[in-house]
Amino acid sequence: MKLWDKGFSTDQKIDHFTVGNDRELDLQLVKYDVIASKAHAKMLGKIGLLTKEETTALINALNDISNTIEKNSFTIEDSFEDMHSKIEFLLIEKLGDTGKKIHTARSRNDQVLVAMHLYLKNELLEIKSGTLTLFDLLMDLAEEHKEVLLPGYTHLQIAMPSSFGLWFSAYAESMIDDLYFIDAAYKVADQNPLGSAAGYGSSFPIDREFSTKEMGFETLKYNVVAAQMSRGKVEKATAFGMASIGATLSKMAMDICLYMSQNFDFISFPDELTTGSSIMPHKKNPDVFELVRAKCNKLQAVPTQLTMITNNLPSGYHRDLQLVKEVIVPAIQDMKACLEILTFSLKEIRVNKNILEDPKYDYLFSVDTLNELVQNGMPFRDAYKKMGMEINAGTFTPKRDIQHTHEGSLGNLCLKEIRGKMKKLI
Amino acid sequence: MKLWDKGFSTDQKIDHFTVGNDRELDLQLVKYDVIASKAHAKMLGKIGLLTKEETTALINALNDISNTIEKNSFTIEDSFEDMHSKIEFLLIEKLGDTGKKIHTARSRNDQVLVAMHLYLKNELLEIKSGTLTLFDLLMDLAEEHKEVLLPGYTHLQIAMPSSFGLWFSAYAESMIDDLYFIDAAYKVADQNPLGSAAGYGSSFPIDREFSTKEMGFETLKYNVVAAQMSRGKVEKATAFGMASIGATLSKMAMDICLYMSQNFDFISFPDELTTGSSIMPHKKNPDVFELVRAKCNKLQAVPTQLTMITNNLPSGYHRDLQLVKEVIVPAIQDMKACLEILTFSLKEIRVNKNILEDPKYDYLFSVDTLNELVQNGMPFRDAYKKMGMEINAGTFTPKRDIQHTHEGSLGNLCLKEIRGKMKKLI
Amino acid sequence: MKLWDKGFSTDQKIDHFTVGNDRELDLQLVKYDVIASKAHAKMLGKIGLLTKEETTALINALNDISNTIEKNSFTIEDSFEDMHSKIEFLLIEKLGDTGKKIHTARSRNDQVLVAMHLYLKNELLEIKSGTLTLFDLLMDLAEEHKEVLLPGYTHLQIAMPSSFGLWFSAYAESMIDDLYFIDAAYKVADQNPLGSAAGYGSSFPIDREFSTKEMGFETLKYNVVAAQMSRGKVEKATAFGMASIGATLSKMAMDICLYMSQNFDFISFPDELTTGSSIMPHKKNPDVFELVRAKCNKLQAVPTQLTMITNNLPSGYHRDLQLVKEVIVPAIQDMKACLEILTFSLKEIRVNKNILEDPKYDYLFSVDTLNELVQNGMPFRDAYKKMGMEINAGTFTPKRDIQHTHEGSLGNLCLKEIRGKMKKLI
Amino acid sequence: MKLWDKGFSTDQKIDHFTVGNDRELDLQLVKYDVIASKAHAKMLGKIGLLTKEETTALINALNDISNTIEKNSFTIEDSFEDMHSKIEFLLIEKLGDTGKKIHTARSRNDQVLVAMHLYLKNELLEIKSGTLTLFDLLMDLAEEHKEVLLPGYTHLQIAMPSSFGLWFSAYAESMIDDLYFIDAAYKVADQNPLGSAAGYGSSFPIDREFSTKEMGFETLKYNVVAAQMSRGKVEKATAFGMASIGATLSKMAMDICLYMSQNFDFISFPDELTTGSSIMPHKKNPDVFELVRAKCNKLQAVPTQLTMITNNLPSGYHRDLQLVKEVIVPAIQDMKACLEILTFSLKEIRVNKNILEDPKYDYLFSVDTLNELVQNGMPFRDAYKKMGMEINAGTFTPKRDIQHTHEGSLGNLCLKEIRGKMKKLI
Repeated sequence: MKLWDKGFSTDQKIDHFTVGNDRELDLQLVKYDVIASKAHAKMLGKIGLLTKEETTALINALNDISNTIEKNSFTIEDSFEDMHSKIEFLLIEKLGDTGKKIHTARSRNDQVLVAMHLYLKNELLEIKSGTLTLFDLLMDLAEEHKEVLLPGYTHLQIAMPSSFGLWFSAYAESMIDDLYFIDAAYKVADQNPLGSAAGYGSSFPIDREFSTKEMGFETLKYNVVAAQMSRGKVEKATAFGMASIGATLSKMAMDICLYMSQNFDFISFPDELTTGSSIMPHKKNPDVFELVRAKCNKLQAVPTQLTMITNNLPSGYHRDLQLVKEVIVPAIQDMKACLEILTFSLKEIRVNKNILEDPKYDYLFSVDTLNELVQNGMPFRDAYKKMGMEINAGTFTPKRDIQHTHEGSLGNLCLKEIRGKMKKLI
Repeated sequence: MKLWDKGFSTDQKIDHFTVGNDRELDLQLVKYDVIASKAHAKMLGKIGLLTKEETTALINALNDISNTIEKNSFTIEDSFEDMHSKIEFLLIEKLGDTGKKIHTARSRNDQVLVAMHLYLKNELLEIKSGTLTLFDLLMDLAEEHKEVLLPGYTHLQIAMPSSFGLWFSAYAESMIDDLYFIDAAYKVADQNPLGSAAGYGSSFPIDREFSTKEMGFETLKYNVVAAQMSRGKVEKATAFGMASIGATLSKMAMDICLYMSQNFDFISFPDELTTGSSIMPHKKNPDVFELVRAKCNKLQAVPTQLTMITNNLPSGYHRDLQLVKEVIVPAIQDMKACLEILTFSLKEIRVNKNILEDPKYDYLFSVDTLNELVQNGMPFRDAYKKMGMEINAGTFTPKRDIQHTHEGSLGNLCLKEIRGKMKKLI
Repeated sequence: MKLWDKGFSTDQKIDHFTVGNDRELDLQLVKYDVIASKAHAKMLGKIGLLTKEETTALINALNDISNTIEKNSFTIEDSFEDMHSKIEFLLIEKLGDTGKKIHTARSRNDQVLVAMHLYLKNELLEIKSGTLTLFDLLMDLAEEHKEVLLPGYTHLQIAMPSSFGLWFSAYAESMIDDLYFIDAAYKVADQNPLGSAAGYGSSFPIDREFSTKEMGFETLKYNVVAAQMSRGKVEKATAFGMASIGATLSKMAMDICLYMSQNFDFISFPDELTTGSSIMPHKKNPDVFELVRAKCNKLQAVPTQLTMITNNLPSGYHRDLQLVKEVIVPAIQDMKACLEILTFSLKEIRVNKNILEDPKYDYLFSVDTLNELVQNGMPFRDAYKKMGMEINAGTFTPKRDIQHTHEGSLGNLCLKEIRGKMKKLI
Repeated sequence: MKLWDKGFSTDQKIDHFTVGNDRELDLQLVKYDVIASKAHAKMLGKIGLLTKEETTALINALNDISNTIEKNSFTIEDSFEDMHSKIEFLLIEKLGDTGKKIHTARSRNDQVLVAMHLYLKNELLEIKSGTLTLFDLLMDLAEEHKEVLLPGYTHLQIAMPSSFGLWFSAYAESMIDDLYFIDAAYKVADQNPLGSAAGYGSSFPIDREFSTKEMGFETLKYNVVAAQMSRGKVEKATAFGMASIGATLSKMAMDICLYMSQNFDFISFPDELTTGSSIMPHKKNPDVFELVRAKCNKLQAVPTQLTMITNNLPSGYHRDLQLVKEVIVPAIQDMKACLEILTFSLKEIRVNKNILEDPKYDYLFSVDTLNELVQNGMPFRDAYKKMGMEINAGTFTPKRDIQHTHEGSLGNLCLKEIRGKMKKLI
């Protein structure tokens, strides 16, 4: 059964090619399709296109479907093109002509649009919540390990003293920036597109303010053409947000993999969180973090995928937009999985407390030693030359007791202030 | 002269390869380097690392440099590696040892970071302002042409009636979404990174809150490692914002090029805004809009460029980050040029008022005619079948007088509400 | 069961995260893993690490597995990490200690590498073959419709006469270029990596030339580190080839969608190949071609995806590389589906024979008319001005009988020469 | 002066926007425009559209321009739109009406197309030659340092013994794969497009075989529409080739930066090839290799840039294609600079000969020790367990004298065979 069945049988090959994996993806979205259908039914009731009885019957039937979905027992058989066809079939099976009326004053395009907006709102909140959980953990780890020093590198060369306090909270503070983009994406999603129909509105006197409130949207995407154009755009907005988080997590994962290498040996994890090798019995590999890195890097290609698909299409719906779903839905699942597994794993991180005892890290203190000369009155460039000569001559001895006191330095992490920044976003 | 001159001459080949086109790009940034240097000098004075006289002398000398920049007469000769070297040279030339002291408690990395943040804040505001100007024009055009009907397409097939009112204001309302990302990027940029030095802070008791206020930043990027990590990240944030606008403008340009084709013939522009052909005397080509499209599409690759450069680099500065400048600066110039030329050109747009008189557009009214059957009581799916049969039999006559009244439809554009949405962003 | 089971139970969460959808993807690759295992077993027999009996037993058992795969009844249960674990389990179950010996002198990394190379060789041949079939169809269509004229556009403006002969064979000739990249990818794949073990070779005296011949590779990837580095690289090579074809098919699909629009009306397809609308009964939408366009555009993002995942990783295996499989395998399936459906659909294309009778296409002939003036002795620039004035004055009358005779022009398509070019590739 | 001047002055703003930096880029291409113009003039003479005298006069005048270009004294003033306008101006200035005749039977599109093909052929050869030079150096370094062992890593964990012989020649052998793509791109470029005029051929009886031979192209792009479609495509083909090389060089640069870190300390370079820090006097930074990495990563985004610009454009010329030039020309310059500087720098590489003396690398030998157990008859999985227990108990002692003898292993680098593979490409 197809919504657009016109009496001739479309070739099966075409059918298979065009439907793709829509049925599977729709299982993620069907919950939101039902929410939107209920709001639409109520609105049709309000404006008199459905009787009170018809409205009640439809709402009840949709609630039944909703229950099936909650119990994970909703299915879309191969005889249905997608979730919309299946739901309409169920409604007609149960309610006859009344079931048919749910499709008054809307189109499938409408349904996909609004379901996607509702779905993304929910997923963006979950991503934000997962980011917050990780943020909190990183801030706690920063507090816990704030006294433990780390070598700081520039150009991968040993540079200046850093600390686990700085390292953990740096990623935490960076994630605040990423949430600006998640919030921006949420604003894009939080606008009701329902009522754009096929992209040019409807001659029915629908009440879009009503359905907007019913579904809990902040506002409408007023212009029906703009509403249609949000297909692809709202997903790309979400992808920008995820790419931002992805870049931060990927960098942290790269640091972790490096720091677990025997050549750094700064951190370790319990055996349960590492994996072995089929041929090297001594290996305890950071597979989890490598996969976080890889998945987060893959996430950073999602904007390109979506742009490739949607770019240079003139306004108005094109079937190309269907493919957006198969890109964004698994990407969101990857994003949430990475946030979850990172939080799960980092709880078990073990930091090596004696890293800087290795004499190869002595040079870390050269800058601070130099600064002391300056504070005692020597012009910077002269102090710099004097130090350089000592280092070249091998006569340099580091002063390890110098304090960093300014905001955001290793002696003054400003964790409270960073938490305060994050609080403004919640 | 190089800041890191250590007494041996680095091979000229290497020099040429590493400096690249930094000098040219720095002319865009030097203004902000001076602003930051002044704030840094004042801060050094406040914490007693400079005497009052030294501070005043440095501020005066920096003001002189600032004047030179304003007059476009600041230059960076080949003997200088970049703007930082040149400015330090000028200060030492004028003030001797005092000039050397400006570099106390900061590093070049610091300088680039803070100058880039100040530069991007300014450019993001200009991009926002250019977007607002175009928004206002599109809204005015929507109002002016709200009665003129256009065919609405889905799948590039004639679908339902649209209008120039819908078309112009759809792009306007879409641009509001893009500004959410420009605003998010602005928040990323509006955090003072100065004080991170080489990425791990300083042993000098610098006052970062002071310099934050002095330069007009909303807040600090507290964590010095996070501050260093914002290199590449703040530019990518900007790139996401520009990619969003770019996608909207590119789509509009695609519509324009299509609508100018003789096969659509919906709009035209005066001769001054079109270009001819070297071989076809009758051509009036939409080169301006094609180049807007192409530049905006190129802008959509900027996030990929920046991600490629920065991806999988462990934390800490790497010279790779220098290349970010040569990607983002010209991209910003392209973005502003596209906004400006589109506004300039669209002012002259001429819309064809009689498009729908062509009988090939009769089918546009099939849905509305169908809806009338439904409003008169026929179930949707039955009405749909009846209409389909009429159309196949060639007996369909469109009703052209049907009204669209709901929010955001062609009869009720909600321009005031859309303007209201935008106002919340200003 | 895991190959690297070390006696402690790895947390289930980690397990789920790291295994991903490997089991499903491995069903595409398992056939090649068995081929490589057989070659490896024979090689172990040849160098005396297996007895003749052990070798025969392993080969027989692998042949049994191979039969199961052929019958689509091979499965990888959730208790197995991947195909390698399952196959080793089956061998040990059947052959005891002999089964364990198959893993002598190789690693799982080795197995994935060689299976991927064999898989890609096969898929690249199938893609090439699908491209050839489409090429032949396009060439036949060009021959069949060579007399039917089309408007040629530049800037989407009506420009000069073209023809269906030119249009069909243009895409055919373009596809030859794409095959240069498929062939290049094939060369990258056609080098045996088996023997690199974990990426640094083996202390066993394995005979890589023997296994190279046994599996039908043209040559070895000699250097074992280079062999390991081909992971990710051979897939990206394939992706470049597919992106090339994708760009060509996507452009053709764009033309088709445009030409099916009522505003062009150049071509049509039987109802079975178009789809309807849920709300507009008259629509016959080019969904197939829109999905070809979208899938081919998505394919063009695959190199970016793979580069993101692999970029800036130092040499040596990283688990990140596992993710390459989940990108390339579905992409290959999309590529083949697009080639197949395009060939299937284009067989049914109907071309409109009277397009140029519409007077809006008169200007198509302006250049040829101008050229005739030039051939009669007027300098080009003067002729150009004269024509321009006639057109502006509305006094221009086109000469429709002008012939194009040069190589590759509409009067001389050189189909034989184009076929000849393609033949060199087969 | 513009070629398409139609008597009205196009607004200056538009002019500035549309011309862009074409004049500067054209200085790279003008040499090839003159070569193509000479071939075109000769062809016009051959088919009788120019007299012998006219042909000779044009050839002489073009030779004069060619000399100016050779001496780097050719300029394109702001009064000219591009190189084509300037050259035509010079010809008309010198030859009057005869100068005008050069433009017979071609268009500017034609000129750009053919000049780009000739330019890319030359640049691809230079890139190939630069790659060969680097290949030879790496092979020599592999030979020179073949006895020096390196730790081999998997997952950045110490894994198995590798060597500088393996490391250098791995990158060399990998570059052979990259050249398959450079060669593929060359084949795409080596097809004469001249004669496609505005994309639909010409009514003049031009002789395209003649001009093909005259310019040294292997064959024609026969179909004129296909010839036009090669705009954007031939550049993307080149970009794929450069992205391949870029990925290889970037990975090598990443290894180098890692190996120069004090935490690895495997290699070093003389001071002239490293750079210092403005604040840390002991630093010797790998800026050159970081910039190679960054530029090569940026190169890997070029296919995306080109695809974004050209994607979803219907067939026929669009002004969008002009922007391709400003992407590809600087990318080629970066590619050649990276090849040159890497070759220049790697000549000076110093390898640390005693790396494996550090006891942390003892585990490198665990696999080989395990293999010896297997060769003495223990089944692999049992040997694996025994070793694992020894390692966990701290009783493992490595055997350092085990030999790798198979093809491509550290004891048998097969340098001759790898050179043989490369030779087939020259």
